[in-house]
Amino acid sequence: MQFVINDYWETSFKVVKQGFYEFKITAWVDHYTTWKKGLKKKFEAGQDIGVELQIGAELLNEAASENKSDAARLKAWSKHLLELNDAEQSVFLAYSNDIAEVMYKHRLPDLITEYPVTYSIDVERKKAGFSTWYELFPRSASAMPGQHGNFKDVIKLLPRVFNMGFDVLYFPPIHPIGELNRKGKNNSLTATDNDPGSPWAIGNRLGGHKAIHPQLGTLNDFKALLKEANSYGIDIAMDIAYQCAPDHPYVKEHPQWFKWRPDGTVQYAENPPKKYEDILPFNFETEDWENLWQELKSVIDYWIEAGVRVFRIDNPHTKAFGFWQWMIGEVRKKNPDIIFLAEAFTRPRVMERLAKAGFNQSYTYFTWRNTRQEIEQYITELTQTEMRYYFRPNFWPNTPDILPPALIQGGDNAHIMRVILAATLSSNYGLYGPVYEFGINAPHGAKEEYIDNEKYEIKHWDWTQYTRIGEIITRINRIRKENAALQSTWNIEFAGTSNDQIIGYLKTDADTNNNLLIVVNLDVNNTQGAHLKIPLSKLNIGYNEAYRVTDLLGGGKYQWFGDLNYVELNPYQMPAHIFKIEKL
Amino acid sequence: MQFVINDYWETSFKVVKQGFYEFKITAWVDHYTTWKKGLKKKFEAGQDIGVELQIGAELLNEAASENKSDAARLKAWSKHLLELNDAEQSVFLAYSNDIAEVMYKHRLPDLITEYPVTYSIDVERKKAGFSTWYELFPRSASAMPGQHGNFKDVIKLLPRVFNMGFDVLYFPPIHPIGELNRKGKNNSLTATDNDPGSPWAIGNRLGGHKAIHPQLGTLNDFKALLKEANSYGIDIAMDIAYQCAPDHPYVKEHPQWFKWRPDGTVQYAENPPKKYEDILPFNFETEDWENLWQELKSVIDYWIEAGVRVFRIDNPHTKAFGFWQWMIGEVRKKNPDIIFLAEAFTRPRVMERLAKAGFNQSYTYFTWRNTRQEIEQYITELTQTEMRYYFRPNFWPNTPDILPPALIQGGDNAHIMRVILAATLSSNYGLYGPVYEFGINAPHGAKEEYIDNEKYEIKHWDWTQYTRIGEIITRINRIRKENAALQSTWNIEFAGTSNDQIIGYLKTDADTNNNLLIVVNLDVNNTQGAHLKIPLSKLNIGYNEAYRVTDLLGGGKYQWFGDLNYVELNPYQMPAHIFKIEKL
Repeated sequence: MQFVINDYWETSFKVVKQGFYEFKITAWVDHYTTWKKGLKKKFEAGQDIGVELQIGAELLNEAASENKSDAARLKAWSKHLLELNDAEQSVFLAYSNDIAEVMYKHRLPDLITEYPVTYSIDVERKKAGFSTWYELFPRSASAMPGQHGNFKDVIKLLPRVFNMGFDVLYFPPIHPIGELNRKGKNNSLTATDNDPGSPWAIGNRLGGHKAIHPQLGTLNDFKALLKEANSYGIDIAMDIAYQCAPDHPYVKEHPQWFKWRPDGTVQYAENPPKKYEDILPFNFETEDWENLWQELKSVIDYWIEAGVRVFRIDNPHTKAFGFWQWMIGEVRKKNPDIIFLAEAFTRPRVMERLAKAGFNQSYTYFTWRNTRQEIEQYITELTQTEMRYYFRPNFWPNTPDILPPALIQGGDNAHIMRVILAATLSSNYGLYGPVYEFGINAPHGAKEEYIDNEKYEIKHWDWTQYTRIGEIITRINRIRKENAALQSTWNIEFAGTSNDQIIGYLKTDADTNNNLLIVVNLDVNNTQGAHLKIPLSKLNIGYNEAYRVTDLLGGGKYQWFGDLNYVELNPYQMPAHIFKIEKL
Repeated sequence: MQFVINDYWETSFKVVKQGFYEFKITAWVDHYTTWKKGLKKKFEAGQDIGVELQIGAELLNEAASENKSDAARLKAWSKHLLELNDAEQSVFLAYSNDIAEVMYKHRLPDLITEYPVTYSIDVERKKAGFSTWYELFPRSASAMPGQHGNFKDVIKLLPRVFNMGFDVLYFPPIHPIGELNRKGKNNSLTATDNDPGSPWAIGNRLGGHKAIHPQLGTLNDFKALLKEANSYGIDIAMDIAYQCAPDHPYVKEHPQWFKWRPDGTVQYAENPPKKYEDILPFNFETEDWENLWQELKSVIDYWIEAGVRVFRIDNPHTKAFGFWQWMIGEVRKKNPDIIFLAEAFTRPRVMERLAKAGFNQSYTYFTWRNTRQEIEQYITELTQTEMRYYFRPNFWPNTPDILPPALIQGGDNAHIMRVILAATLSSNYGLYGPVYEFGINAPHGAKEEYIDNEKYEIKHWDWTQYTRIGEIITRINRIRKENAALQSTWNIEFAGTSNDQIIGYLKTDADTNNNLLIVVNLDVNNTQGAHLKIPLSKLNIGYNEAYRVTDLLGGGKYQWFGDLNYVELNPYQMPAHIFKIEKL
């Protein structure tokens, strides 16, 4: 460890493998070094050091008597110290690196103190820190309207997903869907025979969490898809929802894992007045919890065995923290390349606790952070407080469950503005893709949800249509890949602007000298202009120096000068600049 | 615990006795409360609650089956829940306080989680937080020039100490002084027969740390002094210096407690090139450390038995932290009214560590903090960071070892200014008294030490002389006693001033509505004036409201208005105002 200041010491080490590291801090009384410093002080003060040299010689002899391997050298040094008969030379010898090394090796074990805290580091694969997610329902992937899509259809979509720049393709649960209490279109209580049901109502007579819904394909089809995706650098993210349809095999096989009511039914999930009659939660307070935990973990193990490397965990906050900590720890000890994303939209402390329990990424409140003040405050919390050490955000402008007001009211312009924010504020971001790129935003009455929600029906998408939203998503994802500054979330500094409708922030990557200035118009209806205050000192650019800015998003090259510059953005053309800044 | 916000909960409890408190935090799954909240939600949503009531009745019955004492009531409530046949009344019953109390009493022990941290609180006596120290050498207390003073002489000085407003009278060590290697005047290596030696060179053929230097008196004399001091509300603070003169009995009786050198001598204390030939340190790395610790603790026990309640510990930073933690913990467990002051002028982290080990007060860097910026920064560190929770400062403008440059250069004016700062910035302060009040400030050459230091010779003081310094100390101490705002160190807020030579700060006590504004001229040579910016909002005074300020130190009453007021201070008259602020 190196001395810094005021009893602070620091050191660093390089992590070379994925997985968990631990470190402890130990200290010991270093008699030899203490002695040689005193010796030098006395020598420099012109004092007699005869007795001091005897003490040092004794220290070396003591070490010799306890360590065979270096005994000869230690005894020789001890003898030299006394026989040199030249104070300056003796001090010089006392300070030799050889002695320091040997004495370090033979430090006395009885004077070692160990700090009682064990620190741990979780080394993840690169994708945990930089990933771009696209969510689609495989059952809507068929090229033929009215036909149930399957994994083979998805394989045909992979080039498109790749070309748009996504590297995680995320599916809702792919298991058999419950037939009992199945929901109909728009979450209605009565399903017709044609209604496919919600994929989150998991399990029926055909199997549960380790089975595949037959219409999607076989396990081999799924493995073929994983392999093909992999060849594009795309991970398939699997949705794990630890809950059961009433006809899931677990309910009969392990009734003790559920909470039975006096009327002989299992308590279904609810958040009064909302009811989820098609979903039964596990009872994590069951006395048989050990078997339950093992079984739930075996689901993950099963799909890892099949080739899955990324899991999106549904509603982790309604399960026991202890389970996550144990399960993720066990899984990642064996497979450190596995990524777990927490779908937790809940209280802040609970989301933080899940991150500490081991989740590698988490959904966030970004979905509802709209004004400049809201965004700056939230990003500051995520990146400048201790949260940065354990909580890794993944920004989603929408999900199948959430159509936020901004997207309802703001139409295409809002979709463009929000995805630019997500993709440049956070190195991990994702979209519930088709509806987003096609600009679909019709709400279910007054709810912040999609009408005719894909959760309850099969859709048919025209994947060939051109949209401005899709075009900009594609450009943004390319810019993210080409600029290291967008591949970390912590490297942000906000720029002052003279207009609250304009937000500006600097993203910097020192290693590649990649410096971006992103400016976004938060007003989706009107052109807005602002003076930007650019933190030039951060860029090592002088206040009287010219520099070049290149707009990677909308095109255009400018020469700027000084830290105050004016920008204007029309939301119907391009609501943002992504300026690359270069010293001239 | 009461819910605050975002999963934060708080509670408070009153400490009623001195000593150590511990608390832990436990949590449990409260099934009954969870159930009744769900019940209410469903009821309010107009849903059928028949099955819910059965579940609640079951919860009550389960509790009844496990708890004889309340079984009858629990069973009755269970029955009522089912039989009321009126949803609203059932919900009302479910929410009854009686049920809540009984169910709280019978929470299930298997679902209790205990947070692994045990928090501790150290409740000290009032004087640990508010004390005014006067240091004198009893051997210089004789009324007769040339005569060795003793405890009886000190008794005669008690009225004077009391009248000046001091409540701790602190003596350097009172034990027999070593005769071997005794130091002469001004720390010279050769002592004449008349030289009394340094009181910190402890022990000779007459005894060690449990003995009294014969010329000071007997143990009974000392006890009589303690009793008389006590009747004035004055504590005698004893100096405990864990070190030995070469002729201390320990050296022969416990040679294993010292570090012996190859030449057959014990290593004396040194800080090259400085040498303390009259002092041998204990070797805290001795294998016999357990006996050493016990013996050192027995010294404290011995003097507590004799009636001492306050100990000033010499150089604690050169001894093992573990020893202090153990010793102070053991002593204060039995005698929670004991106060330990750490004489630690060392690195900040070490001073903090000593405070955490249990010291109730500590010397500080105030001695060398002179400019407005230095003072504001240091006080902010002490009072606004987490240090406030464990480190209690005691401000000393001088000690027998330290005559700081400010006092050498600034004469009487500096003595007055510095004691005003110490006494109003910190609720605990102290002076090495006679030289301070008499304005003695001749240095030992270029050193920041007193020439003809009382450490090495007996002095004779004219206690009847009038000095401006003594007069102001007396006034200040009276003001401290009469104003609760000066009896805490944490209640400070700095006021802006337009001149860096003028420092201003507000001290407030909400309980007594006591609000003081202290303004000090840091320039000891020139009159300085400044506009003060008074934090009126803190005083609940409006910006267009008049208020009265009364100068408790220099006299004078003014009516002020607004938050900006001009002051001017002449260091030759009175370098400070202590304004009492009152709403009109």
